[in-house]
Amino acid sequence: MLYQTKNPHGGDIYDGEISLDFSANTNPFGTPQGVLQAISESLKDVHRYPDPYCRKLVQAISQFEGVPQSYILCGNGAAELIYAYCDALRPETAAELAPTFSEYALGLARTGCVPKRYILSKENGFRLDESFLSFLEAERPQAVFLCNPNNPTGQIIERELQGKILSFTKEKGIRLFVDECFLDLSEGGESLKNFLGENPQLFLLKAFTKSYGMAGIRLGYGLCADPVLLGKMAQAVQPWNVSSLAQAAGVAALGEGAFLEKTRTLVFAQRRWLKAQLEEMGFWVSDSKTNYLLFEGPQGLCSALRKQHIAIRSCDNYQGLGSGWYRIAVRLPEENRILMDAIQASL
Amino acid sequence: MLYQTKNPHGGDIYDGEISLDFSANTNPFGTPQGVLQAISESLKDVHRYPDPYCRKLVQAISQFEGVPQSYILCGNGAAELIYAYCDALRPETAAELAPTFSEYALGLARTGCVPKRYILSKENGFRLDESFLSFLEAERPQAVFLCNPNNPTGQIIERELQGKILSFTKEKGIRLFVDECFLDLSEGGESLKNFLGENPQLFLLKAFTKSYGMAGIRLGYGLCADPVLLGKMAQAVQPWNVSSLAQAAGVAALGEGAFLEKTRTLVFAQRRWLKAQLEEMGFWVSDSKTNYLLFEGPQGLCSALRKQHIAIRSCDNYQGLGSGWYRIAVRLPEENRILMDAIQASL
Repeated sequence: MLYQTKNPHGGDIYDGEISLDFSANTNPFGTPQGVLQAISESLKDVHRYPDPYCRKLVQAISQFEGVPQSYILCGNGAAELIYAYCDALRPETAAELAPTFSEYALGLARTGCVPKRYILSKENGFRLDESFLSFLEAERPQAVFLCNPNNPTGQIIERELQGKILSFTKEKGIRLFVDECFLDLSEGGESLKNFLGENPQLFLLKAFTKSYGMAGIRLGYGLCADPVLLGKMAQAVQPWNVSSLAQAAGVAALGEGAFLEKTRTLVFAQRRWLKAQLEEMGFWVSDSKTNYLLFEGPQGLCSALRKQHIAIRSCDNYQGLGSGWYRIAVRLPEENRILMDAIQASL
Repeated sequence: MLYQTKNPHGGDIYDGEISLDFSANTNPFGTPQGVLQAISESLKDVHRYPDPYCRKLVQAISQFEGVPQSYILCGNGAAELIYAYCDALRPETAAELAPTFSEYALGLARTGCVPKRYILSKENGFRLDESFLSFLEAERPQAVFLCNPNNPTGQIIERELQGKILSFTKEKGIRLFVDECFLDLSEGGESLKNFLGENPQLFLLKAFTKSYGMAGIRLGYGLCADPVLLGKMAQAVQPWNVSSLAQAAGVAALGEGAFLEKTRTLVFAQRRWLKAQLEEMGFWVSDSKTNYLLFEGPQGLCSALRKQHIAIRSCDNYQGLGSGWYRIAVRLPEENRILMDAIQASL
């Protein structure tokens, strides 16, 4: 018996014989060679404590994002920063979408807050629309958690609506947390990073996990112009939360622009192909703009595929979804073909 | 400006030109080759999420320590587990020694608890003695934090007293947290792990950091027979807190018994030599049994040595110590000689 809480996410391929993992949305090309090289080179110094301030990494992120170093806080994966944000802010009221990534609510639960949920509907294609503003007007939460693109729907928040949400929350003094962890691998969609300076209520979450195939290394960062909030978040985590291997890997990853571009080209084409395939089989498929697809398929598909050593993400534990809903990562053409054949065969 | 909290510990050698670091108490031989090899081999899978349950590592620790797997919780360094313990337990009253490692009080501060401090005195050689039991009797804290050997004094808790503390806390329903992170590199001193089963109030903290030169990798674990406490601690940290590199490194480290033995032999001899040298210079030196030494030296020694690119740990921010107190790690003979010469020259 293991006392880790039950992990509600994809990617746990360690309990059974999984040869193809579509349950975690990481880069289908794996980790860039330059990142692996940087880790290997940093091994000679792992006997030392990591730089507690992540100086080189913060400098590299600052240049990459075009934001001041003072806006940046690094974490042991983006997930740590969600918990640290909730711990530092301790909002009494909060709002999020449903379905969305479950860690915001888990982070809030630790401080006793149950977020109000704005339900996205299949009828509306899980799109966020202007009625969300009325919801915010009525609820007036202290903090709002958005995910752009949203997980698991892959939906992008439209630019005009995003602007309105930003203005509304700024005007009403509402904290706005936007998870942009999948934005690098998305078609369209715009980071809010240029609005950080004028809006210290805004917090953006970024990860290396997905874009650069670094899920096993653990590295994420937050961007925010509120020094008090970042200071409290830094106090909420232990002094050496980011390993020296992760710091070296992160600096190297930010130089992998060509790798990212190659990934985007592949992912966009393959996502279209996968969507067409699933629709041909008669399934409803979300209009995702990123490297995963949500669809409604037959009951029991997860376990049927698992017998063929293929993992996909069951979405039955997402608020607002249920059994028969699945999320798949967009992977390499030959892998995607195997998955489609396996689903077809299971029907 | 960086928003990490000010780091009150040694080992931050990234801000300036330090060529010899005596401020962090890690293995003087660095990291064993077998551990570096294991990390290199695990690089091919870092694009995947880590095993959220650390299955292989927990199995290896269970065999190494001779405790059931259900007693084990792994963390992103021992420091994360201190915070998770305080977060899960949230004691209203607590007690610790002074001086001692500062992270217990920092972890407690996050839940609003200020520990009562049992002051160790130089006159008594910073030894813990039986009057500590009277202190516990009078204070009756909900939780007690001990460090064996204590940091920065290097003092071991004597076996008989340790037994009495264990009995007293068990009888009175007091939670006993014992940090054994430096025990592997200590002469004498005994782990309390054989008492875990009969005393679910007991929690032991262990780290790979010091013994196996893995400070940059981040890996520690806790041992406890209370499943409710471990479950709460697991919920207090994010789902993938231990990187896949750290998990692989940990499994390999537990097979490095010969490396540890070689380290112990060196450290014990060199500690004696360093102590004699410092005493010859007229300084008071703690009777440490582990891989670091606390001594009272001249004012301004830290900055004098820093000019020679040598870092030692100023102990002026330890409760119960003050300026003029220093802690040095026991390192390789040639390095130790350079340090002694540098101190001598600065007098």
